[in-house]
Amino acid sequence: MQLGDLLQAFSDPLRRRIVHRLATQGEAGCGDIELPVTRATGSYHFRILRTAGWTHTRRSGRERYISLRRADLEARFPGLLEALLRADEAERKAVAEPDAM
Amino acid sequence: MQLGDLLQAFSDPLRRRIVHRLATQGEAGCGDIELPVTRATGSYHFRILRTAGWTHTRRSGRERYISLRRADLEARFPGLLEALLRADEAERKAVAEPDAM
Repeated sequence: MQLGDLLQAFSDPLRRRIVHRLATQGEAGCGDIELPVTRATGSYHFRILRTAGWTHTRRSGRERYISLRRADLEARFPGLLEALLRADEAERKAVAEPDAM
Repeated sequence: MQLGDLLQAFSDPLRRRIVHRLATQGEAGCGDIELPVTRATGSYHFRILRTAGWTHTRRSGRERYISLRRADLEARFPGLLEALLRADEAERKAVAEPDAM
């Protein structure tokens, strides 16, 4: 789990959306996370998050369930997750309400 | 100044070193920041930081002076700079003292 990989992974808006979903709603089946991309593209982004250290994958039957490695992230980089989630929130607000900037 | 660009820029260790230098010691002449790369490569990294929104460049004669856009960063993403600097510190400690991990 390296800072560069984590930040690189989080720099993409679609991957930020996945992390936000996992942070707010906990573990999710990959198929249950709605994304505006093909299944293959979604898998690609899930893989990036996993290899960067953001997520843990659990297999059950044919479904994969992913969750944030919150404790590992917090132990390695205290406060980083919360700061990034807050920044992501600010970014989405700015996109949704450009006049407010 | 977008979150993705800022994080992408900060994901590189050399650029993190530059940001750390500017954060701790303030404005610096580009030529005064010691980097283990060629001048051309250094210029490339300074450009990435500038276009991502991390730095402001001031020209004086033939020298360029760069500084962190601390107020802009703080206004746009409160707390993010401090969190990233702390994470960078943790990363460098882990690299320097791998046994301590």
